[in-house]
Amino acid sequence: MRDDNVTNQNSPLDRFIAVIPAGGVGTRLWPLSRAAAPKFLHDLTGSGSTLLRATYDRLEPLAGKQVLVVTGTAHRTAVCSQLPELQDSDLVLESEPKDSGAAIGLAAAILHQRDPDTIMGSFAADHVISPDDLFQDTVREAIHTAAAGKIVTIGIKPTHPSTGFGYIRSGRNLAVPLAPNAQAVVEFVEKPSEEVAQEYVDSGDYVWNAGMFVAPVALMLKHLEANQPELFKGLLEIARAWDGPERDEVTARVWPTLPKIAIDYAVAEPAAAAGDVAVVPGLFRWDDVGDFASVGRLNSAKEVRDVTVLGEGARVFTENASGVVVSDTKRVIALIGIKDVVIVDTPDALLVTTKAHSQRVKAAVDALKASGDTDVL
Amino acid sequence: MRDDNVTNQNSPLDRFIAVIPAGGVGTRLWPLSRAAAPKFLHDLTGSGSTLLRATYDRLEPLAGKQVLVVTGTAHRTAVCSQLPELQDSDLVLESEPKDSGAAIGLAAAILHQRDPDTIMGSFAADHVISPDDLFQDTVREAIHTAAAGKIVTIGIKPTHPSTGFGYIRSGRNLAVPLAPNAQAVVEFVEKPSEEVAQEYVDSGDYVWNAGMFVAPVALMLKHLEANQPELFKGLLEIARAWDGPERDEVTARVWPTLPKIAIDYAVAEPAAAAGDVAVVPGLFRWDDVGDFASVGRLNSAKEVRDVTVLGEGARVFTENASGVVVSDTKRVIALIGIKDVVIVDTPDALLVTTKAHSQRVKAAVDALKASGDTDVL
Repeated sequence: MRDDNVTNQNSPLDRFIAVIPAGGVGTRLWPLSRAAAPKFLHDLTGSGSTLLRATYDRLEPLAGKQVLVVTGTAHRTAVCSQLPELQDSDLVLESEPKDSGAAIGLAAAILHQRDPDTIMGSFAADHVISPDDLFQDTVREAIHTAAAGKIVTIGIKPTHPSTGFGYIRSGRNLAVPLAPNAQAVVEFVEKPSEEVAQEYVDSGDYVWNAGMFVAPVALMLKHLEANQPELFKGLLEIARAWDGPERDEVTARVWPTLPKIAIDYAVAEPAAAAGDVAVVPGLFRWDDVGDFASVGRLNSAKEVRDVTVLGEGARVFTENASGVVVSDTKRVIALIGIKDVVIVDTPDALLVTTKAHSQRVKAAVDALKASGDTDVL
Repeated sequence: MRDDNVTNQNSPLDRFIAVIPAGGVGTRLWPLSRAAAPKFLHDLTGSGSTLLRATYDRLEPLAGKQVLVVTGTAHRTAVCSQLPELQDSDLVLESEPKDSGAAIGLAAAILHQRDPDTIMGSFAADHVISPDDLFQDTVREAIHTAAAGKIVTIGIKPTHPSTGFGYIRSGRNLAVPLAPNAQAVVEFVEKPSEEVAQEYVDSGDYVWNAGMFVAPVALMLKHLEANQPELFKGLLEIARAWDGPERDEVTARVWPTLPKIAIDYAVAEPAAAAGDVAVVPGLFRWDDVGDFASVGRLNSAKEVRDVTVLGEGARVFTENASGVVVSDTKRVIALIGIKDVVIVDTPDALLVTTKAHSQRVKAAVDALKASGDTDVL
C-alpha cells in the first residue's frame, strides 16, 4: 500500500508505476553470481533480503503494488518466489536478452497501453541504496518533475572521482513545484579518466549516472519513436497484444527481431540533447555492487578480525589475514597470513583474488567461457 | 624379491628387515592431510603412488617382502589396500599412539623375538627420496656398518642452512668393509638458529638428521633397556606374546601403560654418547614434505603458468598468479592477481595461505581444535 501522503487526489504520485529490470548476471561477482543465480537473487549486504526483494520493498511506499518486473524467462520461478505479491500482469518475461532499450521500452509501451498518463520509474534490481526514506524523497521529486514533462534521471552526488561510472552534467534549476532540486541536464558523459573525474567532482556540476530514471511513458515512447523507429514499432506491436490472447504469438515472432541497444542511447542521450531531460540529485548512499571489493565495503560490520565474512553457514578462521570471504558452502575456510584477499567459495567453483584485482573477475569468466567450462558460469 | 647382489651367502644384507613407521597426521599439510587421511596416504609428488607405497617400493630391493609396518588400528584398511603384499605378521597395529620410542621399540622387540640376529632399518612412511638407487646404496653401507656393531643413522648432506631439522655431527671414518663412508657420530644437535646452521653447513662436519637408522635389533634393545627400563620391560612382554594366542590380551593390558618418548631420546642420543652410533651420509635428495611450500617444490613440473597444480580432477584457471594449488575436488578454481599463494581445496575445508606462511598451518589446526571444529581435522 502507498504511504498516505502520496495518495492525495490528483497527485502525479498516483500515476506512478515502478519498473524493475531484473537482468544482468553480474559477471564480476562470479562465481557467486552466475547465469542461473544472477546478482539480484543474492543477499549481498547481509540484510537477510535479496537485492531484488530489497529493491521492491524500497519502492513499495511509492508504488504500492503497482510494480512491473522485467526479467528473463529462466528467472520466473526465482523472481516469483522472492516477490509472491506479483500478479501475472506485473511480470514481463524476456525469452532472450535484448539490452535495456527493449526491456525498458517494452515496459513503457505496455504501461502506456494500459494507461497513457502513467509515470514510470525504472530502478535496477541489483543496486544497494540507503537510507530508504532519502531515496523515496528523491524519487518523489523526480515524479513531480516528470509530471512537468521531463525524463528525470536520479544522479548520485559523487563521493570520490570514480572512473567506473558515467557522469551527468547538470544545469539550471528548473523551479518545478514540489521538486526544489530538479535541474536541467546539459549532457551525459562517458566514464572519464581519473583526472577528468576529479575536475567533475571539484566543479560540483556533475553527478554519477546511476541508471535510474522517472518519466511519463508517453514521453519515453515519443523519444524512442524518434530515435529508434524500428525498435519502437516492434515494441508497440508486442504491447498492443500483451494483455490479449495473442501475446505469445506476437512476442515470439517480434521480440527476436528487435535491435539491441541500451536505453541510454535509445532515449536518454537524444532526449537530453532535445532539452527534455532533468536530473534530481540523490543524497542517499548508492552502490551498484560492481565487484567483491564493493561487497566487502557494504558488509564491513561483519568482520572476523580483519576479514569481512558473508554467508550464513560460513566457518572462517583467520590468522594475520584481511579481506573478504563470501561463503556459499558450509566448509571450513582457514586464512593464514594473506592480506586484502577476496575468496568466494561456492559448491562448484572457487575464486581467490585480491580487492585490487576484483574488477578482473570478468576476464576470468571470459577465459572460462572460451575454454568451454561453461558449467560453472 | 631382493636383488641378486644382496642375497650372497652370509651377507648381513640377508638379515635385513625394513620397518616402516606409518604414523603422524602431517598437521602442517591440513586440510589435505588429517587424522582420517594422514600424510603417508597421499600422493604428494604426483608420482601416482602414495608416500607409503613409494617408501615400500624403495625398500623392496633391499628387504624383499621382509617388511614390518607399524601404524594405527584406524589405518589398517588403508595401509593394507596400499600394500596388498603385507601378511598379517608384517603389520603392527597400535591401539593408541605412543610416540616413536614405543613404536620402533616394539618392532625391534618383535623382530628380536623372531630372530635375534636381525638387522632392522627404520624409514618413515611419509618422506620423499630420489633417486632410489642412491638411497639403496646408502642403506647397504648402513647395513654393513650395523653388522659391525653400530646403530647407524643415515644423514642427509645439507643443501641449505635449514633451521627446521636437527643435525648430526660426524667424526672419524670407521673403516668398515663395504661401507667406505661410515663415520662415527660425535653428537646429535637440536634444530639450530640460522647463524649456527650456516656454521654447520660451512664446516662440512654436519648432516641433517632424517630420522632414518639401521641397527642390529639386539643393540637397539640393549640401549633401550639401559635407558628406558620400564618401556623395555613392557615392550618385551608384548613381543613375547606377539606371535602367540595371548597377543591381544597382553597388548591391551600393557600398551596403554607405556611411557611416551621419542626414539631419539630413548635410544639414539644415549647410544651416541656411549660411542655406539655411526652415520652414513646420504647423497640422495630427501624431503620430509613438511609444508605446502615443499609440496610446491616437489611438483614444480606441473605448472599452469606460474601455479603448481596437484590433484587429478583439478580445473585451475590463473591470471597473473603464482603459487601452489592442491585440489582434492573437481571444482573450478580461479586465481587472479595473487602471488605465492597456497590453496588447498578439499570437500569440507579450504586453506588459503602463502608459501611464506605455510609453516603456520599447524597453528590454524590448533585453533580449529580449540574451537571444537574437529570434524575437519
